[in-house]
Amino acid sequence: MPCTKSTSKPHPLDSLSTDEVIQTAKLIRESKEDSKFVFNTITLREPPKDIMMAYLGWDKETPKPETVERESFVIIIERPSGKVYEAIVSLTDNKVKSWMHMEGVQPIITFDEMAEVEELINKDPKVAAECAELGITDMSKVYSDPWAIGRHVDGAEKRVMQGLMYYRLSEDDNQYAHPLDFVPIIDLNQMKVIDIERIAPRDSKFKRPTIPMEPHNFYPEFLGEENLRKDIKPLIVQQPEGVSFKVDGNEIDWQKWNLRISFNYREGLVLHNLNYQDGDEKRPLFYRMSLSEMVVPYAEPGAPHYRKHAFDVGEYGLGLSTNSLALGCDCLGTIHYFDAVFNDASGRPFVVPNAVCLHEEDHGILFKHTEYRNGRAHTVRGRRLVISHIVTVANYDYACYWHLYQDGTINYEIKATGEVNTHVLAEDETPGPYGTMVAPQINAQHHQHFFTMRIDPMVDGLKNSIAQVDVQAVEEPVGHPNNMYGNGFYPKTTVYKDTLEAQASSNFDTARFWKIINPNKLNPRSKDPVGFKVVTHSNSPLFAKPGSIVHDRAGFASKTVWATPYEEDKLFAGGFYCNQANGEDSLPQWTKESKSVENTDIVMWYTFGVTHLVRVEDFPIMPVESCGFSMKPSNFFTCNPALDVPPTTKSINKSVHAFKSDDDDSCCNKSAPIAA
Amino acid sequence: MPCTKSTSKPHPLDSLSTDEVIQTAKLIRESKEDSKFVFNTITLREPPKDIMMAYLGWDKETPKPETVERESFVIIIERPSGKVYEAIVSLTDNKVKSWMHMEGVQPIITFDEMAEVEELINKDPKVAAECAELGITDMSKVYSDPWAIGRHVDGAEKRVMQGLMYYRLSEDDNQYAHPLDFVPIIDLNQMKVIDIERIAPRDSKFKRPTIPMEPHNFYPEFLGEENLRKDIKPLIVQQPEGVSFKVDGNEIDWQKWNLRISFNYREGLVLHNLNYQDGDEKRPLFYRMSLSEMVVPYAEPGAPHYRKHAFDVGEYGLGLSTNSLALGCDCLGTIHYFDAVFNDASGRPFVVPNAVCLHEEDHGILFKHTEYRNGRAHTVRGRRLVISHIVTVANYDYACYWHLYQDGTINYEIKATGEVNTHVLAEDETPGPYGTMVAPQINAQHHQHFFTMRIDPMVDGLKNSIAQVDVQAVEEPVGHPNNMYGNGFYPKTTVYKDTLEAQASSNFDTARFWKIINPNKLNPRSKDPVGFKVVTHSNSPLFAKPGSIVHDRAGFASKTVWATPYEEDKLFAGGFYCNQANGEDSLPQWTKESKSVENTDIVMWYTFGVTHLVRVEDFPIMPVESCGFSMKPSNFFTCNPALDVPPTTKSINKSVHAFKSDDDDSCCNKSAPIAA
Repeated sequence: MPCTKSTSKPHPLDSLSTDEVIQTAKLIRESKEDSKFVFNTITLREPPKDIMMAYLGWDKETPKPETVERESFVIIIERPSGKVYEAIVSLTDNKVKSWMHMEGVQPIITFDEMAEVEELINKDPKVAAECAELGITDMSKVYSDPWAIGRHVDGAEKRVMQGLMYYRLSEDDNQYAHPLDFVPIIDLNQMKVIDIERIAPRDSKFKRPTIPMEPHNFYPEFLGEENLRKDIKPLIVQQPEGVSFKVDGNEIDWQKWNLRISFNYREGLVLHNLNYQDGDEKRPLFYRMSLSEMVVPYAEPGAPHYRKHAFDVGEYGLGLSTNSLALGCDCLGTIHYFDAVFNDASGRPFVVPNAVCLHEEDHGILFKHTEYRNGRAHTVRGRRLVISHIVTVANYDYACYWHLYQDGTINYEIKATGEVNTHVLAEDETPGPYGTMVAPQINAQHHQHFFTMRIDPMVDGLKNSIAQVDVQAVEEPVGHPNNMYGNGFYPKTTVYKDTLEAQASSNFDTARFWKIINPNKLNPRSKDPVGFKVVTHSNSPLFAKPGSIVHDRAGFASKTVWATPYEEDKLFAGGFYCNQANGEDSLPQWTKESKSVENTDIVMWYTFGVTHLVRVEDFPIMPVESCGFSMKPSNFFTCNPALDVPPTTKSINKSVHAFKSDDDDSCCNKSAPIAA
Repeated sequence: MPCTKSTSKPHPLDSLSTDEVIQTAKLIRESKEDSKFVFNTITLREPPKDIMMAYLGWDKETPKPETVERESFVIIIERPSGKVYEAIVSLTDNKVKSWMHMEGVQPIITFDEMAEVEELINKDPKVAAECAELGITDMSKVYSDPWAIGRHVDGAEKRVMQGLMYYRLSEDDNQYAHPLDFVPIIDLNQMKVIDIERIAPRDSKFKRPTIPMEPHNFYPEFLGEENLRKDIKPLIVQQPEGVSFKVDGNEIDWQKWNLRISFNYREGLVLHNLNYQDGDEKRPLFYRMSLSEMVVPYAEPGAPHYRKHAFDVGEYGLGLSTNSLALGCDCLGTIHYFDAVFNDASGRPFVVPNAVCLHEEDHGILFKHTEYRNGRAHTVRGRRLVISHIVTVANYDYACYWHLYQDGTINYEIKATGEVNTHVLAEDETPGPYGTMVAPQINAQHHQHFFTMRIDPMVDGLKNSIAQVDVQAVEEPVGHPNNMYGNGFYPKTTVYKDTLEAQASSNFDTARFWKIINPNKLNPRSKDPVGFKVVTHSNSPLFAKPGSIVHDRAGFASKTVWATPYEEDKLFAGGFYCNQANGEDSLPQWTKESKSVENTDIVMWYTFGVTHLVRVEDFPIMPVESCGFSMKPSNFFTCNPALDVPPTTKSINKSVHAFKSDDDDSCCNKSAPIAA
């Protein structure tokens, strides 16, 4: 049952339905009949955590509230004044509860604005003149990717965007093979082109670049069906007895996991109330987890490239950028989809069907041991639950996957794909060390991708701490009684006391990782605080210097881990009004003063990412580059929690031999001697 | 067709057949009729690289040799003298070509010896006396895991082993829940127990530990079928038209990949002659790749635990330790297996059926881009070829996977599973910082796993170099003309000149990675040398101190990357005679003097691994812990080499909806608007 069509009373954490978007816009319009509004965003205002803890049953002291007020949160831009307003609407009481004019801020850029801007640019005579000089007469072949401005001279007073310009040989031609060398700047409230910046070659000896006209495409009709590989045989994943998960609205049950999901314009997919059935006990793990912000800074120091550091969550809305997924393409097997609901500029709802994909995957061996003496092999295969969505932000595409495993592991993976951003070079000009020439005159600039997770834990309760674990050799030299043979090493654990301590980066030399622990509960076996370890396989420093625009705005990406005490309104590492902001209201600012993060209700901010030095192989479309992080129970359970997963056999999974008849009767826990 | 039954003439790189093992042993016995031999190992002596380069057609100057001589390499131990001999047998000429007595070395420990040792220990009166003191009267319930001795006081003169002792409540009971507190030392040539070491608690205040008798099992018969999860629905992978790969003996063709495999007692699976079809050109990539050595040092500084640092390749033979795989358990879907052939102590061959698994897997999205303007989504799913085997070394099990991808990526993954090594604690004794108490009195000591790969490249030819790439911010401060906005960064590339330079570890601060390049060939697009980048997601420093026994013996694990000029007989980072060795003949020694590794025939030694701080969740059987490394074409091709992979659709892969009838007609490159 897709979340948008649930006829039953919505759960307090359910995203707004189409009806609720309509109701919200109606109330806003009625309350301000005289103004011309652009509805920027209409979204659920999530109920306060304390109310939800009681509602969800974790707070045993407080009785479960009969009802929880449904509220929507609205951002409106008044035209032509450009004034930004915040409104809170009570859907329960059917009234506008609050209305506030916000000074000097700019909310996210919407698709409606992007469409308007691209149309505007193509009609602009100054743009036409630039194109004419490049030999372009047919403006219908000119395309502009509307990008946020980064930091603008006027700060956030004006609502401003930049257009990255491209040419297409035909409607479906790959424009990134034909970049143009100028950037129009647009005032979104006046809706006019206020400036055009020419991108000069790094060296003045080069004359203005021509447009590279060589086509570089990836659609089959360009490659020719006859040139596609013919030797890939079909691979089919079947679940004849159906899936192992249950879905009720937005609540998901799978194996011993239980959670809810929601989907909003900003973060996209959000996981709520993750808990795990441990014997008779339902144990709370995480109250809320989402991708809080991301940033993609580019390496090229020249103007205007320094402006390219997209905040795909805070500037465009990662949720708003989500794809409608197709069965058998984005995910394989037996799939359940959830839709997503957003609003357009006029306040009308629109639905993205199949926004979220839910399915199961075989995940290979979960555990195995062979008794070498008699060859008895005990092999148990693992399963994972995958909750995913895929977003497109202009040239780039990000596939985002939450994975839940039977052993209590949680994994989040992002696969970066799509098209690398390109810049035109003059003939004989080179990218220097800042990019790769992927084709004549086409410079794909190096860049980084940072993804900052907001992890709101409730590991056996809300009072949690974060421990940094550094492994080190025993201090004493070889031969010392404490380290006679020199092999000794041990983990050094530092529990963060406050926000100033809780700012750390990865460290190879100490194999550093982190734990979210509950200091109030010890593991009965190990006597350690119960916890989840947080590990990543993809970290990178932020190479932009302190004092740079990127570093000011994306300081949150300069550390791997931050911790803050829980605060209702602090959801986004780059600040709520991230677009055109200067970082004044972002994670590094929130943590400038000491606040306790020990044994209290905390939020962990975790950043992973990749430094992407572009390869020629990333053009014209980029094979997925994967990164992510994992959380594993660490002395949380009293033994391997997947111990009760039964082995599978070929009688169940129908595995067969490739080149001979299936005459092999061994199965996963029969004896198959190692040595005959 | 399994490699052992190939009736056709063997390829020069094929492992020995059963007949060839028989022929070898016969020739050896006939040539030394008067002696009593233990056949340690009989294996293929691979032909010289220069001959093979001509045979494989890469050396265009030299004509392909009509025949290549088949040779076997034999290690023999004379009893009771314990003298070690090396012999080379020509199978082609049916004669023993060479015979050499090797002073002061010890070859690997064999299963025959392990069986002998365990029997010996259980019959030994001193062992019985130790057991009696612990209250054990039934010696049939006492088990010993035979471990290599590490470094012994007498060096490698005596052939010595240690037995780690356990008790079982019943034949299939998990012995690691009942560790004993003493270690018999065995002379393998005399076949007698020469010493028994009592493991004293760290603090003398504790009296001798009793045996923990609480059972901790994972076999279904112990858990009770009724307690296993019932809610996992079958998941079936089908390839109705068969697999996409071709197998001819040990040669594998898949997509544009071509390679050969072999399997030996030491490294197990070896990949030979990897090459890739790029348009009309067949391009050589790697001559030979294998897991050269591994080491598992433990953290506990006390005696005799410091001895626990298993070299599972060089001490036991990773190939010899391989499992016979079962259809539908170890791998899912449509499988082809290869057998492996070894020898027993008497020189008789034995076959491990299904030693190597070959199959295909769906690998999710290979690349995708959605045109946000019209919602046209182009989604291409990826496939990978998996070549794997699984080894068991006493308590631990390692599943080893080579993955080949359609975009030219090569990945090697090791999943560590099985049972953590346990040590008994006295009542009230704690593991200190060196381990985790996974159950009362059971200390699972922290440890590390290092895996050192030998990568013998031929990237577009044998003359290759290794480049270290360090990313760094532009030096100039913010505001300087070269870094006006402070965002500038670039990769700094250092091409290693010699063996002294080519010793480096991972570096988080510079997002360091490495490239294997061919400086003699530039990418026509980027003008960079063609190459493959080498990246890992799992590195850890070796925490054992320089001067420690582990560091002396496993110095190869103290760096991430080493390079050496190609040398025929240097295959094993820990030395050929690793067992009881002191590291005198290991990688760090080979690289003490400067030898050129630039633009020549080189070998790259690459180490990855994990620091395993044991969790309670790792007991009584450990969920897989994954680590590995990848190699990606980096400016090797002129575009994304997977561009010609066609999209799949639900009409091909039969994906279905979980809870509704399949009424969704969108497919991977039809339009599915992002915003309705």
